[in-house]
Order: sequence, then C-alpha cells, then structure tokens
Amino acid sequence: MNMAMQPTLGAAGEFGGTVGPALDRSPSGVGGSVHLPDRWLAALLQRRIDPAAVRLELWDGSSTYGGPRQPIGAVVVGDRRTLVGLAANSDLWFGEAYMNGRLGVRGPLEPVVEALSALTSPYPSWRERLKLALAGDNSEHKSRDNVHHHYDLGNAFYQLWLDRELVYTCAYFAEPTMTLDEAQVAKLDLVCRKLRLRPGESVIEAGCGWGALALHMARHYGVRVRAFNVSREQLEYARDRAAREGLTGRVEFIDDDYRNVSGQFDVFASIGMLEHVGLRHFETLADVLRRCLRRQGGRGLLHFIGRDIPRPVNTWITRRIFPGSYTPTLAEVTTRILGPAAMSTVDVENLRLHYAQTLAHWAQRFAVARDQVRATYGESFARAWELYLAGSQASFATGCMQLFQVLFVPRESPPPSMTRADLFASPELHA
Amino acid sequence: MNMAMQPTLGAAGEFGGTVGPALDRSPSGVGGSVHLPDRWLAALLQRRIDPAAVRLELWDGSSTYGGPRQPIGAVVVGDRRTLVGLAANSDLWFGEAYMNGRLGVRGPLEPVVEALSALTSPYPSWRERLKLALAGDNSEHKSRDNVHHHYDLGNAFYQLWLDRELVYTCAYFAEPTMTLDEAQVAKLDLVCRKLRLRPGESVIEAGCGWGALALHMARHYGVRVRAFNVSREQLEYARDRAAREGLTGRVEFIDDDYRNVSGQFDVFASIGMLEHVGLRHFETLADVLRRCLRRQGGRGLLHFIGRDIPRPVNTWITRRIFPGSYTPTLAEVTTRILGPAAMSTVDVENLRLHYAQTLAHWAQRFAVARDQVRATYGESFARAWELYLAGSQASFATGCMQLFQVLFVPRESPPPSMTRADLFASPELHA
Repeated sequence: MNMAMQPTLGAAGEFGGTVGPALDRSPSGVGGSVHLPDRWLAALLQRRIDPAAVRLELWDGSSTYGGPRQPIGAVVVGDRRTLVGLAANSDLWFGEAYMNGRLGVRGPLEPVVEALSALTSPYPSWRERLKLALAGDNSEHKSRDNVHHHYDLGNAFYQLWLDRELVYTCAYFAEPTMTLDEAQVAKLDLVCRKLRLRPGESVIEAGCGWGALALHMARHYGVRVRAFNVSREQLEYARDRAAREGLTGRVEFIDDDYRNVSGQFDVFASIGMLEHVGLRHFETLADVLRRCLRRQGGRGLLHFIGRDIPRPVNTWITRRIFPGSYTPTLAEVTTRILGPAAMSTVDVENLRLHYAQTLAHWAQRFAVARDQVRATYGESFARAWELYLAGSQASFATGCMQLFQVLFVPRESPPPSMTRADLFASPELHA
Repeated sequence: MNMAMQPTLGAAGEFGGTVGPALDRSPSGVGGSVHLPDRWLAALLQRRIDPAAVRLELWDGSSTYGGPRQPIGAVVVGDRRTLVGLAANSDLWFGEAYMNGRLGVRGPLEPVVEALSALTSPYPSWRERLKLALAGDNSEHKSRDNVHHHYDLGNAFYQLWLDRELVYTCAYFAEPTMTLDEAQVAKLDLVCRKLRLRPGESVIEAGCGWGALALHMARHYGVRVRAFNVSREQLEYARDRAAREGLTGRVEFIDDDYRNVSGQFDVFASIGMLEHVGLRHFETLADVLRRCLRRQGGRGLLHFIGRDIPRPVNTWITRRIFPGSYTPTLAEVTTRILGPAAMSTVDVENLRLHYAQTLAHWAQRFAVARDQVRATYGESFARAWELYLAGSQASFATGCMQLFQVLFVPRESPPPSMTRADLFASPELHA
C-alpha cells in the first residue's frame, strides 16, 4: 500500500566498522574493464549525488566522490549497462539493477536511499510530466489484475512481516513507544473515532484488505459493515476471521469492485485504496459517494498516500510493485471526488512520519524473514521488496510522499464534532 | 472578515406571537397597485423558495406561498422594481433592496436568510462562473482602497460589537458554553498551539487586524513578531496597545503590504487576510512564503474563509461590504500557494460552525448597538450590516461557506508534532 521512492541515483566508501559482509549488498555482476567514457559518466552522476554524501563506485572500485563530508554509504554499479541506465533513467534503472543484483548498496540500505531521496526536486521533471499526461486506464478488469499482482502473493507472505491484524497501511503511533501491533490498532481506532461511529450505524468500506478495520468497527463500535475487495485471498481470510470471531452477522465481505457499491450508508471509509483507483476514475468514486452516503448526518474518511503536487509514481514501482497506481494530491481529491460529490472537507491530517515509522518496522521484520521469502520467491523478489520498503520509508521520511486522512461530510450535514478534543478524551485505545 | 450569503430570495405569513413591531423589518416603500405580471413573477419566485418555507409577499400583502409547512417568515417586496430585480439577479438585489428599505423580512432575519441559503445549489450557476472568469485585480493600491473601505470605518464602530480583544475572525468555542471573549482568546491560543511556538522564535504575521494575535503570541509564547497591515486605524490601535502592555520590543506593527515582507522567519501566520488577496495574487503569496519561511523547522498557518468548489463571493457583498474579496477552495490554496512554495499540508481543520456561532454573537451585539450605528452611519448602513452578519451566519450554518485553518511546513521539514494530542494536553487556555 505504499509506492514511494524517488532515488535519483546512489555510491560508497569507508563506513567504519559497521559494515560487515552481512550489510554488504554488493552487486553480483562485475563488468570488465572501466574505460574513460565510463569514468566520465560516473563523475557526472557523482556530482549530482555528492550533496547526499553517497559515493558512486564503479565495478573496479573507483569513485570520484567529492561530497562535503564522510560518505554515509555507496551505490556500487556492477557493469556499463547499469551505469548507462542510471544516467538515462535512474527512476527505473536503480530499481531494476538493484533487483537483478547489477547494482548494490554498501552500507545500510535505507539511509542511503533516504539521502538520495532528499535530493529530489520539489517540482516534477519533464519525464514525470510526460508520464502524468500519458497515465493509463484502470478498468474494472485491469484493476483486478493490478490487485492480484500485489495482494494475491499469498497471505502467508504478508503474515511473515505485517502486524498480527494484517494491516497493510500506515499505522498510528499515538505514543512513540508503541509496537507495530499496538500502532495498527491505534490507527483502526483513530479512523473510528474521527468518523464518530455510533452503535447501529451502517458503514461501507471500499477496499478492506484482510478485514481488520471492518472487524474492529463491528467489534468495538457496534456498527454493521459492508466491506468490498477484489482480492480473493484477502476475502477468504477476512470471512474466515469474521466467522471465528462471531461477527458474520455484522460484517459482510463482498467480492466486488468499489464501483458496484449500492445502497445507502451512514459512513464511508476507504483506507489505502485510493492509490489504486487512478485519477481518471475519481469521478466514478465521486458518483459512488453521492449515491451511497446519506446526505443527512453522513460522513466519510479517505486515507491515502498523497503528494504535495501532481507527480507520477516512480516508474520502477509501477512496473514491479504497484501497476496502475497513482498517489494524488489533496487538491485532486477535493476537486475531483469531494467537490463533484458535494462533500465538504472537515479535517485533514498528514501522517507521513507515521508511515516512515511503519515502514521501518516492516523492513526490519522483512529482513528477519528474508531467507524464507528468498526460498519461496527467489533472490530478486526479495531484493525488489527490500528496496521497495526502504525506498518507501525514505520517501515518507523526506517528504517526497505524504499520507493524508481526509474526513468529509455531505455539504448539508454538520461536521460530526465541534472540536477534536473528543478524539483524545479517553486515552486508552482498543488494543 | 466574512463574506458569505447566497440568499436566492425570500417572503412572510403568520408567525404566531413572536413577531412584534420590533422584529417586523418591513420595507419602507410601498409600490402602488399590483398587476397581473407582478403576480405571475411573484408566483414564479415563490415556487423557488417554497421548500425553504418562506413566503414572498407583495406590497399589497398578497402571496402565493405553497410550501410544505407553516412558513417561518416572509420576504416583503416593496415595489415592482425590486420584484424585477430579484427575478433578474437576486444575489445583488436582495441586498440592495434590503439595504434601501425596498425589501423587508418579516420574522427573525437570520433563520429566514438561512432557510433561503440552504436552497443554494452545491454547484455554481452560469452567472457565478462568468463572475469567476472576469475576476478583477488586487494591485497594492487597490488592496489599500479595499481594506480602507471596510476596516477604516473607525475603531469605535468595531468596538461596539466585537469582543474585547477586537478579533474580527472566526472564534473557537473550545467549550460550548464559552463567551465570545473567551472563544476569541481560545482561537488565538489554538493558532499558537498548532504552530507549536517556542520562546525566542521569530514570527511574521500577514494582515494583523488590531494586533490581538501578535500580542498574544509575544505575551504568552515569548516569540518576536513582525505584523503587517495596511489599515492605518488598526495599526495605530495595535501600536498603542503594544506600548501600553510593554510589548513594543517584541512586536513590531508595520504599515506595509504583505507583498513587501522581507527577512527570514521561523513561523508565518495569516488569519483572515487570504480572502482579500484574490486568486491572481496567490503566486505572489507563494513567493513571500518561499522567501520568508525558514526551510528547516519552519511552519505556517493560513486561516481563511473557503469554499468546497470555486465560487465568487456574493455580488452584493463585493459591492457593499468587501470589494475585491475572494474565498478560495482548499485546492486553490494548496495548488497555487503551498505547492509552488514547496510546502506540505500538515493539518486542515474546518471550523465553519464556530464561525456561525461567532456571527450569531456579533449579530446580537450589533442589534444592541444598532441605534448608535444608525445615528453615526445612517439607517441603510445599519441595514446593510445587519444583513451581512445574518447572511454570513446563514452561509456558515448551511455549509455554503467553510472556515479552514491550514497548517503547513516546508517540504523538507518534519510536521511540528507527531500527533495532535499536545493540542489538548493542558486544557486551560490563556484567557
């Protein structure tokens, strides 16, 4: 549910005693002799990343690092093809080469990627603008494929490194010392609190993952939930869990696209699905809201990865991790979804640092489970995922990506609460 | 600082014993005989406002009210010219005719205006679109004129009906029982808390009114404030107060346009000024932010009257009350100010019901001071202001207008706090 990363490029040096063989993620390929044009191109790239204090190291171990201080790590380029690829399109080639072992990072992965990520311009490049203009279409059929690509990797895979509730979205560290398990429950509860759920109300959830939020709502707030998802594996898990917990009568998990939601509800919730909708289908979501949310007393919450300004998702991420994804700006959400649905924005909270912290937990757990992942899916899959997690963490840490929770109501309905004090009234959470 | 109102039209009937001569705001002009075309036009208008349960009453006392229930009040049309004006352009003519006594409201003013306001379509009319497209220019010179028009009516005028701190923006009723004085101090403090002011920091305030926020910041948070304003009368008052309170060394009130702000600051604050900037000058404000806000650790807050979707300010309001005003959408602010300034949105709170409550207080105080206002400024001025206050209250109550507080940081800076819990940590406010 995250799709960050703008590493422009990356290189390494002497990192003291902390870099042992275990941390040395060097490339597997070694690319023959280094010629003058290679050095010239490498020097060009090195100048760009000098401010990040990251060395660019060629396959012969050479580097022209000239940064302002001791380098924090190195990007090791394994061959000429990778070097040229980085120069031509680092957004794609960094990931491709890392995944295939033609590029390595010396030193801890995340800080290096984060330092590179911090170099990203706040304004989109011509290549990004072009990609935005050519954005593809997420038909229902294609959405199913896209979702299947990522979410149907097998529940067992996600169980290796997610929290015990299997919540694959940004957690909420209400207290800095919370564990990931606690912070995910705190997030579920924060969403319920912001929506001011009342017993007996009806809730529609668009994109429900493994069902944690729907079950939390029904269990602790006494509401009835209809939760939509197009991932078979997730639905089976969620239904099974509802049955085990005796919540089948109050939570219904529906194998269908959010576009086909029908009926009228008090509350709409969607956590981490908007990124998969695609800008061209925002009007469709607006129609769903207009159709399904009760105008009197209704309210809704959208939780999504967002941007300060319109930018496409990193090319490598859309190729390998999240096909069809788009992370919108707040303005795109208010003008293309909430405005046309005649909804008023009540409250927006940016939780990007919570997502960086969540991703740090995931990456740590993933590292522990790495051998198992590798055994089942292979080394390049494991490398792709460790880069995706590190890159996402970096993007949230540096502000390249945002995480927005947007609470809204139909224009004719009052905001559900006069102040936010009630959100903090009883400090204990449903843990 | 508020500029609401979309009353489409308005009429009256039997309102029980509550309508005495004091509440009977009937028109002064009586327009001769009523002919068939008058009745036909009135019936047309009446059909439009039937759902609001408001009668349209002609100068002979006739009405074709056919609403679903007992009418809550009546709009009394004093002559043919007013009737035709309402049919042609009610946005302008309702206000003009009310002000000049050619139109009256029978029954309490605000509920009637609110019922009419609730009929406003959530989408803009062709006339509104046209007005948006033709929006004028707020040069520095014109801005001064515009500000002078409204704010230099004399401090004595505003002292008649504002709170004791002279805060002419939406208050914050942290507790429902708060007085207006308390709620305005609570608002000042909420702004300081959201900005997480720390002693010794520097603050720039764009548009400081009578100085209440700047003085509150310096007094309670130990910061240094440079506060800009182009209203002479307000500045004199603010400087005088700073001197009396021994805060001259820490708060500087500057007679200049926000466009000319220079220097670098930790914090930017602007409360109720954005409405006077005009959409075409948002880029200029973005430049100011980019230039003046420290990238590392900086943060800012914009507090403004906003809209769900782009709409012009009511025509009568821009003619008589706030020339040059524009109430932007959240999207216009993020795409035209925060995006270009490379700022990230951290937190948005919609306080529209607090503004409705604030306006109810103002209207009540204004009613008490009405005779004094009339003695100084004349009857039509008093009528204009009572309609403006009632109309604004109606617009915030019905969701035609929003009040947004937007907290932001430079993209490379972290949000000033991980959660909002600290905003509610110590319940006592600096009252």
